[in-house]
Amino acid sequence: MSNRLQLNPNRLFSPDPTIRQIATELYDSIKGLPIVSPHGHTDPAWFANNNAFSNPTELLIQPDHYVFRMLYSQGIRLEALGLGNSKEAQLVDPEAVWQIFAENYYLFRGTPSRMWMDYVFAEVFKIDVALDAHTASHYYQVIAQSLQQEQFRPRALFDRFNIEVIATTENPLDKLQHHQKIAESDWTGKVLTAYRPDNVLDPEQADFAEQIGKLSDISGETTTDYQGYLNALQNRREYFKRHGATSTDHGHLTPFTANLSDAQASKLYDKAMLGQVSAEECELFRGHMLSKMADMSVEDGLVMQIHPGCYRNHNKEVFAGFGRDKGADLPMPTEYVKNLKALMDKHGNNPDLQVILFTLDETTYSRELAPLAGHYPSLKLGPAWWFHDSPEGMKRFRQQTMETAGFYNTVGFNDDTRAFMSIPARHDVARRIDAGFLAELVADHRLRLEEAHELAVDLTYNLVKKAYKL
Amino acid sequence: MSNRLQLNPNRLFSPDPTIRQIATELYDSIKGLPIVSPHGHTDPAWFANNNAFSNPTELLIQPDHYVFRMLYSQGIRLEALGLGNSKEAQLVDPEAVWQIFAENYYLFRGTPSRMWMDYVFAEVFKIDVALDAHTASHYYQVIAQSLQQEQFRPRALFDRFNIEVIATTENPLDKLQHHQKIAESDWTGKVLTAYRPDNVLDPEQADFAEQIGKLSDISGETTTDYQGYLNALQNRREYFKRHGATSTDHGHLTPFTANLSDAQASKLYDKAMLGQVSAEECELFRGHMLSKMADMSVEDGLVMQIHPGCYRNHNKEVFAGFGRDKGADLPMPTEYVKNLKALMDKHGNNPDLQVILFTLDETTYSRELAPLAGHYPSLKLGPAWWFHDSPEGMKRFRQQTMETAGFYNTVGFNDDTRAFMSIPARHDVARRIDAGFLAELVADHRLRLEEAHELAVDLTYNLVKKAYKL
Amino acid sequence: MSNRLQLNPNRLFSPDPTIRQIATELYDSIKGLPIVSPHGHTDPAWFANNNAFSNPTELLIQPDHYVFRMLYSQGIRLEALGLGNSKEAQLVDPEAVWQIFAENYYLFRGTPSRMWMDYVFAEVFKIDVALDAHTASHYYQVIAQSLQQEQFRPRALFDRFNIEVIATTENPLDKLQHHQKIAESDWTGKVLTAYRPDNVLDPEQADFAEQIGKLSDISGETTTDYQGYLNALQNRREYFKRHGATSTDHGHLTPFTANLSDAQASKLYDKAMLGQVSAEECELFRGHMLSKMADMSVEDGLVMQIHPGCYRNHNKEVFAGFGRDKGADLPMPTEYVKNLKALMDKHGNNPDLQVILFTLDETTYSRELAPLAGHYPSLKLGPAWWFHDSPEGMKRFRQQTMETAGFYNTVGFNDDTRAFMSIPARHDVARRIDAGFLAELVADHRLRLEEAHELAVDLTYNLVKKAYKL
Repeated sequence: MSNRLQLNPNRLFSPDPTIRQIATELYDSIKGLPIVSPHGHTDPAWFANNNAFSNPTELLIQPDHYVFRMLYSQGIRLEALGLGNSKEAQLVDPEAVWQIFAENYYLFRGTPSRMWMDYVFAEVFKIDVALDAHTASHYYQVIAQSLQQEQFRPRALFDRFNIEVIATTENPLDKLQHHQKIAESDWTGKVLTAYRPDNVLDPEQADFAEQIGKLSDISGETTTDYQGYLNALQNRREYFKRHGATSTDHGHLTPFTANLSDAQASKLYDKAMLGQVSAEECELFRGHMLSKMADMSVEDGLVMQIHPGCYRNHNKEVFAGFGRDKGADLPMPTEYVKNLKALMDKHGNNPDLQVILFTLDETTYSRELAPLAGHYPSLKLGPAWWFHDSPEGMKRFRQQTMETAGFYNTVGFNDDTRAFMSIPARHDVARRIDAGFLAELVADHRLRLEEAHELAVDLTYNLVKKAYKL
Repeated sequence: MSNRLQLNPNRLFSPDPTIRQIATELYDSIKGLPIVSPHGHTDPAWFANNNAFSNPTELLIQPDHYVFRMLYSQGIRLEALGLGNSKEAQLVDPEAVWQIFAENYYLFRGTPSRMWMDYVFAEVFKIDVALDAHTASHYYQVIAQSLQQEQFRPRALFDRFNIEVIATTENPLDKLQHHQKIAESDWTGKVLTAYRPDNVLDPEQADFAEQIGKLSDISGETTTDYQGYLNALQNRREYFKRHGATSTDHGHLTPFTANLSDAQASKLYDKAMLGQVSAEECELFRGHMLSKMADMSVEDGLVMQIHPGCYRNHNKEVFAGFGRDKGADLPMPTEYVKNLKALMDKHGNNPDLQVILFTLDETTYSRELAPLAGHYPSLKLGPAWWFHDSPEGMKRFRQQTMETAGFYNTVGFNDDTRAFMSIPARHDVARRIDAGFLAELVADHRLRLEEAHELAVDLTYNLVKKAYKL
Repeated sequence: MSNRLQLNPNRLFSPDPTIRQIATELYDSIKGLPIVSPHGHTDPAWFANNNAFSNPTELLIQPDHYVFRMLYSQGIRLEALGLGNSKEAQLVDPEAVWQIFAENYYLFRGTPSRMWMDYVFAEVFKIDVALDAHTASHYYQVIAQSLQQEQFRPRALFDRFNIEVIATTENPLDKLQHHQKIAESDWTGKVLTAYRPDNVLDPEQADFAEQIGKLSDISGETTTDYQGYLNALQNRREYFKRHGATSTDHGHLTPFTANLSDAQASKLYDKAMLGQVSAEECELFRGHMLSKMADMSVEDGLVMQIHPGCYRNHNKEVFAGFGRDKGADLPMPTEYVKNLKALMDKHGNNPDLQVILFTLDETTYSRELAPLAGHYPSLKLGPAWWFHDSPEGMKRFRQQTMETAGFYNTVGFNDDTRAFMSIPARHDVARRIDAGFLAELVADHRLRLEEAHELAVDLTYNLVKKAYKL
């Protein structure tokens, strides 16, 4: 017989009665606050077109690299999960994929994916048995049928999830027509874009010149020289701002920054356009352009997010066969103090510039990030990111940043996800972990209870609104 | 008056009543499972010859670098402990060494050595007073007398310790005559070897060519060229397999891997044999050979263990006077994502290859190792190793790997020890820490109790058998 | 209405009743022990002259970089806090600064500064309402009035704080006239100096030759050549010893050490004096001189402290406008195993040399520092330092060093502060954290209660006296 699926109301709270009681009280006061999602990867087309989601597998498994990377790590082929363009993948029955997932659901024990999924099953789809090989088919039917209903369409879920505002992420070549359509619709959901120019800042990409050509087309600026290129980037920032963007996002390999002279930058740009740049020159160009993005942020007020330190597409074979975002991105050691020096020299003391730092290298929390954010007016710390967006990861983030940066140099929670269904689950985990963390500080008398109450609301709602200018 | 020695049945469990009760229940279900010890450094001669162990000092102090490094760090000379070949060392009375150990036993407070030792004293030798200056002599007598008894001989202890299988570690030049003798005896204890070829893969050693000469002798292969060298290595792998080996072990300085062409490798090999290789070329050769070992593993099915990141024999004077393994090996920062790239390019996606990664650099748990093992089918994570084989170290390992790699990309416990007496103690600590860790996940509702029960058995018994093909 | 300010007697202890009871018992046995402060930055002039402290702002805010860096990070200008020499800063009303501090006191929630400050307010100034915008003026009056009283003068506080001995830190060019004056006074407070020669060991400073000139003047040694330079350094060490110094302190960028020949060192010195050294040569010279300092310590018995890994004055603008120690010092990744090799080769095995290692890079605790200190007789570990001198930081220090280095390769607590008022608060936090940490080990049966009692006294009092030869 299969087990019941029941979300315990005390989940993620310490079993210690003193802590649990305080945590529950704090959590109760924030659990109903609207979701503010300032950074993520949902598809604006969902909200623009409001079509029904197709089926459980296409919705919950195939786009979720957390899920299929774990299955893959245990020897399950990606083709068998319907990924990629092979004939096998195309012919796979979605329900068969779901069955594989169910049979291997035990692999996720202890992972955040398991917690998020169980929340989606129980709260969104009202399923009350645990997922396993025997209940797989029941799950598939219930979810598939639900998705056909009006109240499971994207806009209805957006409202039901109590999302106050969500930001998607687009590159400067995007026309933002979905955002346009949403704006012109009678639906009141707030879906913003964010400006992510990696593809037009990185000369190491093979098609860099081609991308810049497209940038010229879409911006109407001549990008044959460096100044025109800057104008084009700025032009697109303005366009994104008009479509609601309040932030930019930068996924560079390192947080290296540099301040080149116009002449130096111009020369590098010309070489980049000819594809004649060394790896070192590429890093220099990216570092310079990150600093340039800060210049533009000082002007136009867009908040900068820096998400560095990820070795993308590490798995050659998987990349060749299945493309990017297939669970083969891997963190690397990341250095901030020296790398950010040029940017800090230029704008570090400007309290009007807002730069939000993220990391996949947790060693930098106490060593570099908290000390940096605890000093420079322009710097704030983004929440525990990606692999570290998890109960233990979030606890480490707080334990290792609070004492030097305080709470007020952090910016609340980001779900950073393309898994729309899981957004309430992810925010719920963050709220529980923060409530539990604050409860511990109250229980050992580092905070007064009323301070913890104020902090709980700040960490859930106020700080993110302020930091992202929402 | 001396204190009582009593192992508390709740040791290492949280005092929180909820957690403790669950931990106790989980622990009770696994404490009696047989010991599977897939990697370690016990001496096969013990089991082949089954001679009585000599005396307490020679058994418990002199071979244990955890013990004498702590004494040494506090100014106690190694000669005074009977280590080395000096006249002073040779003349030292073993009981005097024991007395020094007892007088300084307080230094081990909070260390795993203390926990292991107390377990050995209480459980193996049934001593019921704590070790201190006053009880030293009592201890010495009790242990010395015990060792003369039949039931304290290696084979009897092996059976009493409920060891299902143990692997020792030998280099390819070893004739494995002890394993042969065990196999031919009527004793049923399962003592396997493991293939550790560091001494014939590292051209940075002064006597590399000499080692290769011996490799030729023992394998019967001509090792004057690279292909012959590969044949010899393969030949010895086969020989080790016939003596029960299911794994290889690689203690390289870094986990660097490289895929050279045969021509390049051949040229490097020739230079290495002439002693004309630079430090860089040595690293390149080792990296290439690590990848070659993976090629061979794909063929013969031996599981690969990689134990990198240790600066061996850091203390010049101690090395000169006392040789290797004298507590002067020191961890270094270790990088995996880039270093393993070549190996992953070649075999990363092969679920039939099993590569088990270890580290002495805990920063890599959440940053590199869990993300790697949570993606590549060929990779699994070995348990907390060496300095980190300790209660706090094991907790960090679980806390920092579980959320990304899950439990099922780990391989259970390794005792990795030459301290035979302590093997049950070490496995007991691991079982307690895992039971306690799972209990916390049950107590805060991240796992259901029946899942924790299943995991407890998997972490203790099933995963290690599967990963090491035992 | 403002909140009450009340220090809970159980603060920083786990709410678990078992742990809390043991922690309380341990803490009660050590809370009254005298304060031994072997390393810090109080001003000896305070104790020499025994003048009243001026006002709350000048005493508690303006010299405390923990405090103003947090305010600065949130956009409050340093001039508005009265820092720097600008007209604005000079004209600022100290009470207005206090008001800013009070209004922003919520920023410090969860930081050690908050805990220290509350202790100072409640215990030293007997204030019973919490600091906020409304109570700011009350605070200012109470503190200002107190400071006028005899019992708030430096010597009276020193006695009231139960300080057995305190060390200040001076550079070799200091005449130590304040220490002289204290020694000649009838006051019995023990105020020692410590020898910090960074300014005369670092040729990367622009005014190096000038500093060396002054070193010649004060020592009476001719420093035109390397041997004379060594003589001058030694001469000043002797002078410092005569004024009570038992230790030296070295704040190098890295813990790099080198053993140059006299000829090599002499040549480097000559180039340094001419300002003709590259960055690499500067590092080599510093590394050599660190090793030379060890040579001298072997002779004169001064304990060496090494405080590496800090990027000083990272904020160009703040440094230009406000000078050093303005909260813009940032930790960097630090490596010990290779860097200390030269020093260890020379003196590592000498148990009469005492080298105390500190770090701002917590990743080195379990990876490098505990393994080093758990082996080399000359090495001990200093406590959690600077950004990590905090409840969570101290717990991590113990959790990550205890199992490999034990407790007895550590040296008790350092307050390392110029904030005199906070010294009892800082020692109190350390005692509470150690009591709580030991209580956990007793509660899960890793230590017997009587061992924890002994350790509590050792960690608070005995180890620091022994390590610093006090």
